[in-house]
Amino acid sequence: MTGRDAASPHSGQIVPAHELPVPSTVSAELQARIGLTATMSFPADVPTTNDGWDRQYNPDPAANRTRIDALLVDNNLVMEKKDIGGVHCYHIIPRELGDPENGCTIVNFHGGGYVGGRGEAGLNEALFVASVGRLATVAVDYRMPPEHPFPAAVDDADAVWLTLSSQLGPARVGLFGTSAGGGIILCLVQRLIARREAVPGAIVCGTPWSDLSETGDSYFVNRYADIVRYEGSLGVKALQYAGGRDLKDPLLSPVYGDFHGFPPTLLLSGTRDLFLSNTVRVERKLRDAGASSHLIVYEGQSHGRYLSGLDVPETRVAAQDMASFFRQHILPKS
Amino acid sequence: MTGRDAASPHSGQIVPAHELPVPSTVSAELQARIGLTATMSFPADVPTTNDGWDRQYNPDPAANRTRIDALLVDNNLVMEKKDIGGVHCYHIIPRELGDPENGCTIVNFHGGGYVGGRGEAGLNEALFVASVGRLATVAVDYRMPPEHPFPAAVDDADAVWLTLSSQLGPARVGLFGTSAGGGIILCLVQRLIARREAVPGAIVCGTPWSDLSETGDSYFVNRYADIVRYEGSLGVKALQYAGGRDLKDPLLSPVYGDFHGFPPTLLLSGTRDLFLSNTVRVERKLRDAGASSHLIVYEGQSHGRYLSGLDVPETRVAAQDMASFFRQHILPKS
Repeated sequence: MTGRDAASPHSGQIVPAHELPVPSTVSAELQARIGLTATMSFPADVPTTNDGWDRQYNPDPAANRTRIDALLVDNNLVMEKKDIGGVHCYHIIPRELGDPENGCTIVNFHGGGYVGGRGEAGLNEALFVASVGRLATVAVDYRMPPEHPFPAAVDDADAVWLTLSSQLGPARVGLFGTSAGGGIILCLVQRLIARREAVPGAIVCGTPWSDLSETGDSYFVNRYADIVRYEGSLGVKALQYAGGRDLKDPLLSPVYGDFHGFPPTLLLSGTRDLFLSNTVRVERKLRDAGASSHLIVYEGQSHGRYLSGLDVPETRVAAQDMASFFRQHILPKS
Repeated sequence: MTGRDAASPHSGQIVPAHELPVPSTVSAELQARIGLTATMSFPADVPTTNDGWDRQYNPDPAANRTRIDALLVDNNLVMEKKDIGGVHCYHIIPRELGDPENGCTIVNFHGGGYVGGRGEAGLNEALFVASVGRLATVAVDYRMPPEHPFPAAVDDADAVWLTLSSQLGPARVGLFGTSAGGGIILCLVQRLIARREAVPGAIVCGTPWSDLSETGDSYFVNRYADIVRYEGSLGVKALQYAGGRDLKDPLLSPVYGDFHGFPPTLLLSGTRDLFLSNTVRVERKLRDAGASSHLIVYEGQSHGRYLSGLDVPETRVAAQDMASFFRQHILPKS
C-alpha cells in the first residue's frame, strides 16, 4: 500500500495518443476556460525565492489589485488587512452583516502548491465565497517556502486558529481551502486533535493536497486530463516545502495521519482532477474514523477549476456549496 | 448542455501515448485483478438474441453454478427461486436471520448493460451484499433485450417493487444495483414519484448508467483507463435496449429526469470509472432537488470493480458500505 503507483508489480494499460474533448456538460463559460487552457504550457524555470514564485503566480500585481477592487465594489464587500495571532491576514466582510463578531467566521487558506498566492494573489477563493455566501471571511497570508518551508504554513494557520477560536468559540469558526490550503487545514486539525484541543465547527477541503508524494491513482489517470502537473511542477514545490523531510511524513501528507475526532468535513473534487485520489483517500479515512464526511465531485472539472471566477456559474455553485455547508454546521442557533 | 461531449466548439487537450500503471493504493488482490485485465480484449461480435449474450456473459454456466453453491455454503446463506409479482427472482437469506419478513429486505438489480446477467449470471452483487451485510436479499432476474427491450426491465422492477412494498411497507424495502441495475432503480423511483406513490426507504446506485448517450466527461477522460468501452460495446447495448427511442429520453437516461422526492441515496463510483460522470451528475441533481445524497468514490477502481469477488478486500468494503447505508435508513426501529 506504499510507494509510487508505478511501483505496482503488474503491467498497466497502454493508452494510445488521442484528443480529450472539452466537456459539453459544463457551462459555456467554463467550456471556454477549459478550451483556453487546453494548449497552455507552464514555465519551466523553478524559482528559488518567494519573489520569484510571485512573478509566476502574480505577474501583474497592479491588474490584480484593480480586479479585486472591482470585485469588492460589485459584491458589496469591505476588505481590510489585519494582524491575527501575529500572522498577516485579510478580513473580508459583506457590508450588510453589521458586526460580524455576532455570527460565525470562516477562515481561508489559499492554494498555490505551498509556494504561490502570497498577499493579494491568494484572495480569490476567500472573495468568491464571501461574495456568494455572505459570510465574514478571513484570508490567511501564511508564510511559504523557499524562505519559510514546513512547518511555517501550519504554524501560521495554528496561530490564526488559536486567536479566532478563543475570540469566537471553536464551534463558530469554519476553515476552508483548496489544494495546499486544504492540506494545511487537514494538518492543522490533526495537530489540534493530537493536542486534545477543540476542533473547528466544520471544514471544507477542496481537492486537498493530502499526499505530497506522487501516490494515488488520479495522479496517473488524470495526468494529461488536468492542467497541473506533478513532474517539474508540484513535485518541485513539494520538495521546497518539505525542507528535507520525507514526503510521506503525515505532517506533510495528512492522508497518512489519523482522522479520528474530525469535525464535519466537506470534500470537493472533479471528474478530471489530478487530486481526485488525494480527495477520496481522505474521504475513506474520515468514513472509517466515524467522522461525518461529504464528498462532491464536480462534472468536467480539473484541479481547483471551480475557482475560475464569479462570471463562471460553476464558481458560484461551489461557493454556494461551501457556504451552505458552513451555515448548516457552524451558524449559531439563535 | 446537450450533445455528445465531442460537440463542444473548443479544441481539447492532446494526450500522448503512455502506460497507465496499476494503482499501488489498492489491495494486492485488486492490483492482481487490475493487472490481469489491463491487456484484456473484448469480443467483437454483437449477439442478436438473449442466448447469444448469455454465451458472452456466462460462458460456463456449470462452473458458475459450482462457484455460487460454494459461496452459499461458505457464507451460510440459503437461496431459493421465487416468483414475485410475476417476475423470476432469487431470494437469498442469511441462515441466522430466521424469519426475514420481520426485518427489511433489500432488492438487487444486476448490471450487464441491460443485456447480460440473466439467471444465475446476475447474482454476484446480491450474493456479496447478503454475505457481508447479513440482510435478506432479493435478486431480480428482469427481462432484457434483444427479446425484451425497454420498458420490460423497469416494468419488471415495478412489479417486484409493488409486491414487496405492499407486503413489507415501502420504508422497509431498499433497492440496490450497479451499472444498468442502478439505472433501473433511478427510472423506477422517478416512475413511482410521477405516480405519486411511496418510495423505498433508501437506494444504492453503484456507478449507475444514468446517461445511455455518450455524454459526460468521464466517458472521455477514462476512455482508456476503464476496461468497459462505449464504442462497439455499451453503445450497441444501449441501442438494443432503447428499441428506437432517443437515448436521451429520461425514461432511458434518468439523469435527464426529475429527482424531487427521492429517498436517501448512496452513489458509488471509482477514480478511473467510465461512469464517474454518470454518477456525479446524478448526485448534483439529487443535491439540487433537496434529497439526501451521499457519494463514495473508490480509489483505483474502474466501472463496477468493487464486484471483483469476496476474496478481494475492496468488495467487502463496498458491500459493507451498502449494508451500513441500508441499516442506517431502513431497518425498523424496534
